Amino acid sequence: MNINLFLSPESLDDFYFQDKNCVVIDSLRATSVICTALANGAKEVIPVATFEYAMKISAGIMSGQNLLGGERNTKKIDGFHVGNSPSEYTPETVSGKSIILFTSNGTKAIVKAKFSKDLVICSYLNLKAIANYLLEKKEDFEIVCSAKGGALNMEDTVCAGRLISKILEKEKDCTLNDGATAACALDREFGGNVHKMFRESDHGKILTENGFQDDLEICAQIDALEVVPVFTSGSIKLLNN
Amino acid sequence: MNINLFLSPESLDDFYFQDKNCVVIDSLRATSVICTALANGAKEVIPVATFEYAMKISAGIMSGQNLLGGERNTKKIDGFHVGNSPSEYTPETVSGKSIILFTSNGTKAIVKAKFSKDLVICSYLNLKAIANYLLEKKEDFEIVCSAKGGALNMEDTVCAGRLISKILEKEKDCTLNDGATAACALDREFGGNVHKMFRESDHGKILTENGFQDDLEICAQIDALEVVPVFTSGSIKLLNN
Repeated sequence: MNINLFLSPESLDDFYFQDKNCVVIDSLRATSVICTALANGAKEVIPVATFEYAMKISAGIMSGQNLLGGERNTKKIDGFHVGNSPSEYTPETVSGKSIILFTSNGTKAIVKAKFSKDLVICSYLNLKAIANYLLEKKEDFEIVCSAKGGALNMEDTVCAGRLISKILEKEKDCTLNDGATAACALDREFGGNVHKMFRESDHGKILTENGFQDDLEICAQIDALEVVPVFTSGSIKLLNN
Repeated sequence: MNINLFLSPESLDDFYFQDKNCVVIDSLRATSVICTALANGAKEVIPVATFEYAMKISAGIMSGQNLLGGERNTKKIDGFHVGNSPSEYTPETVSGKSIILFTSNGTKAIVKAKFSKDLVICSYLNLKAIANYLLEKKEDFEIVCSAKGGALNMEDTVCAGRLISKILEKEKDCTLNDGATAACALDREFGGNVHKMFRESDHGKILTENGFQDDLEICAQIDALEVVPVFTSGSIKLLNN
């Protein structure tokens, strides 16, 4: 099994993903939000790469049946129903709804990987469920983290390292690219205390400064949700739903 | 002192570097070549980002006084005088010459960072010299590795980690971004045997397949050269030359 990790989707071509299996991670916070929303009964999450497109498709879905969610500079966007904190996506708020989600990095990474043969959404919340899904599938896959501007973001790289390590426990014959090898080493070094790793990460510090410190705790709940969110035909739904 | 590491220059804006100090690393092989050429008496190295520009400026410099060097897909380009192996840049070949260098990643990274206040070239060959230069300077700096397509390349990240660790030995009060923190951890894990790390890296494997295994050994000679190559006004020269 070949496992390739990319730290950021920005420089990749959309067509890179064609015929490939892909896992997108934005553990702080978009993919944690998507897992939470679907676990709490949302009908689907529609990830969008631009604010303008969010507004456009929101107008096309009957009001009352959709929610606009997301953030700019970590904060809820004026006029949106919900921001980018998992705690906002309660069963009362999301049950039966189509959620149009626009975030700074995570939803852009998903949209970039839209041509994948199979595209699943991973966070610490559903790590075991995704690992089991990939182990059952037994095919090569790509992992895309949600850093930007050539940076490495610790929270996604370490999360990816944990996912890969879980695969390697069961599937010995894997070939990793440099990024995947590095992610496993970073998981060994920093993944023992995920909440601490989040707090000390660049983005974790920004979230804390902006009052979202509770989100770090929520997003660090390893394997809290048994969900496999799959992107098909423009929206993310639970597997087999 | 703030130390920020970026794994790739691709998604960064040229103007990001304005008024910043920058270190570019492409240990396999462009920055190792630049250090070797200057240590062996080259007058200057002119890094270029495109093949066309290499041809254009080559025509503008009197023949006999310049050399065209570089690679495409690891191999010497037809019509160029030298490829991208440090062993080609002997005193006999380079002494007194202006070398126009075009490589797939390294020279592009240098050109991307061209607006830096101070831009120096680092490889394992001159790691100590660059560490001492930065320690004397005592200013914030950025490190740009030469990965592409959202990837992490092990050889530059681990080299950067070694550079940062050397700084941290003397300068305790440093703030690292996620990438710099990760690089130090990867140096601890993989930096003990640089030649082995090179051989097992994605790019090291490609170089070996293409017959350049000797370059891995040469580029792994830690602190073999006491040079500080500085980019000023479009060309790289030794400090104080």
